[in-house]
Amino acid sequence: SRRYSIAVIPGDGIGKEVMPEGVRVLEAAARRFGFALDLQWHDFASCDYYLKHGEMMPQDWKARIGKVDALFFGAVGWPDTVPDHVSLWGSLLQFRREYDQYVNLRPVRLMPGVPCPLAGRKPGDIDFWVVRENTEGEYSAVGGHMFPGTEREIVMQETVMTRFGVDRVLRYAFDLASKRERGHLTSATKSNGIAITMPFWDQRVEAIAAEFPGVTHDKYHIDILTAQFVLNPQRFDVVVASNLFGDILSDLGPACTGTIGVAPSGNINPDGTHPSLFEPVHGSAPDIAGKGIANPVGQIWSAAMMLEHLGEAEAAAAIMAAIEAVLSTPAGRTGDLGGSANTRDCGKAIAESI
Amino acid sequence: SRRYSIAVIPGDGIGKEVMPEGVRVLEAAARRFGFALDLQWHDFASCDYYLKHGEMMPQDWKARIGKVDALFFGAVGWPDTVPDHVSLWGSLLQFRREYDQYVNLRPVRLMPGVPCPLAGRKPGDIDFWVVRENTEGEYSAVGGHMFPGTEREIVMQETVMTRFGVDRVLRYAFDLASKRERGHLTSATKSNGIAITMPFWDQRVEAIAAEFPGVTHDKYHIDILTAQFVLNPQRFDVVVASNLFGDILSDLGPACTGTIGVAPSGNINPDGTHPSLFEPVHGSAPDIAGKGIANPVGQIWSAAMMLEHLGEAEAAAAIMAAIEAVLSTPAGRTGDLGGSANTRDCGKAIAESI
Ligand SMILES: CC(C)[C@H](C(=O)O)[C@@H](O)C(=O)O
Ligand SMILES: CC(C)[C@H](C(=O)O)[C@@H](O)C(=O)O
Repeated sequence: SRRYSIAVIPGDGIGKEVMPEGVRVLEAAARRFGFALDLQWHDFASCDYYLKHGEMMPQDWKARIGKVDALFFGAVGWPDTVPDHVSLWGSLLQFRREYDQYVNLRPVRLMPGVPCPLAGRKPGDIDFWVVRENTEGEYSAVGGHMFPGTEREIVMQETVMTRFGVDRVLRYAFDLASKRERGHLTSATKSNGIAITMPFWDQRVEAIAAEFPGVTHDKYHIDILTAQFVLNPQRFDVVVASNLFGDILSDLGPACTGTIGVAPSGNINPDGTHPSLFEPVHGSAPDIAGKGIANPVGQIWSAAMMLEHLGEAEAAAAIMAAIEAVLSTPAGRTGDLGGSANTRDCGKAIAESI
Repeated sequence: SRRYSIAVIPGDGIGKEVMPEGVRVLEAAARRFGFALDLQWHDFASCDYYLKHGEMMPQDWKARIGKVDALFFGAVGWPDTVPDHVSLWGSLLQFRREYDQYVNLRPVRLMPGVPCPLAGRKPGDIDFWVVRENTEGEYSAVGGHMFPGTEREIVMQETVMTRFGVDRVLRYAFDLASKRERGHLTSATKSNGIAITMPFWDQRVEAIAAEFPGVTHDKYHIDILTAQFVLNPQRFDVVVASNLFGDILSDLGPACTGTIGVAPSGNINPDGTHPSLFEPVHGSAPDIAGKGIANPVGQIWSAAMMLEHLGEAEAAAAIMAAIEAVLSTPAGRTGDLGGSANTRDCGKAIAESI
């Protein structure tokens, strides 16, 4: 019988509120589709942990997590007590790097019941994927600080792109596009301004494109690409981007479809040599944390992505259908979407409708 | 009597088509408001020039331009013949750096007659400025390429921020905010991920904020900030950003108000030690170049910004009123805005209505 071992890491703020709903739905799906879950909850990778232990995670975090099939993650960050760059580099960004989760995969899909800020768009009109490089690029810790505290102060930070790192995420993206009906890939670049790394990125896109003759492709500079997300979102099928550009596009995309509150993401190690991590796109949201009103759909949709990744496609589809059904009724939606449900109501409704 | 010496540089593609309309309107404003223009046209800073001379500009371009009050620029780039990073670094980016135009100032304003892609917004709802650092940051030419053509290939590019460079653009932005009714500044950051340069940017924002007690301020990470441009554009008053983030936000902002085809920008040397440069936000648009259908409003609005900068506030206001009047009628608008005018019709209508 199918059994999955999963590390559950709620993190900070609303992470702690939406995670129980994600787990509730996972468990409902397990019952319904006949697989078993072995869930290990961890309190590290959170600012609470930092305040107690002076670090975001124990030194032996990898051993403590042990051999798992996936990580299910909430949100991390509590800027009032720990600066963001400390909390993030000490947790989420470590997972991505240490587990070599080199693809960050995020859907941009207009869902029923989610009011769209763009005029005249309806569910079905917008449906694409952002594939983000997730281990190198602009998110390097390489650089330094000279003459701190003086008028001559200078900071430098290196963007580092390797052929190894760029090619593998491009291949993933082209492969994904090749399996989709439209089979189209758009590359985010900025080779006119960022004139060393980005022309290299463009070259690698052309090189990998040659391996996928069935996929059409184009490229946009990131500035005009963000404009196109607003003006012509129906144009996109698979968008591939560097770490920073992918970060931007995968918040902007969900915003164009109404809210980042429902958007999920997979931090994927496609080679299967390490576990992948699934988390909502939203952060810990200190402003609404503790009130029980956060929208749990991002966490729940992440559960669906995780099950899909683990091979439970039917269960994943059932969760998606349940999300769509519950979002379609005002009583099912949380307040951010004009509904009357709190976090738990929404989670329960989705779990029950599976 | 007032006389302004202006270098006119049309550049490539639709730059050559919209520039005559920008000049037409400038000349109309000069007649009406009683100042004289001394216009010198230059054919360099274009890919045509490159094809003839093997460089984008002559070595002595600064001497050829000479002592001018401002530069009026069209658009540059023709990727079929010259790679973008060659054409841009050889022209526009040189002007910004050599003339130390350290502020790139771009309005985001919903105009009458321009269909807004965001649901339920009307002229007046969206009206803010993006202040972009324009000489350093992510647009450095510092870095390199190792093991080219091999599996081990690596490229690196340095983001360089100096206290000198950051503080002066922040002061400009805070000062601008202090003169506006709402007096609010938003800083674009990404200190959670870009963990060396961006925490420094945040620190300098706090330091300069202390000099402007009358201005309120907040900050957003660039990913969620792009989302807020779509979801809550009415929230912004002055947005200050690094070179790359400002580039992105100042295309996204105009897209949220309907089109980048009407958006202007000023590349400003606030110290007055060098001339400033005014140009539309749009590029050379090879896809529609040569057809006479490009929207000239970005170029014409840039003329208004230039006159404002030169102290001709009344003339600038008259151009803005003329733009609004002409955009309000289908016969005045170009095809991209659903109107029936071509480039010249639109330019003439604006010139005549001054
Ligand atoms: C053409 C390009 C180099 C330029 C930039 O990135 O600065 C343009 O996008 C702009 O915004 O003026
Ligand atoms: C929290 C932050 C470091 C992170 C990122 O930039 O990768 C987040 O925005 C995301 O997209 O997962």
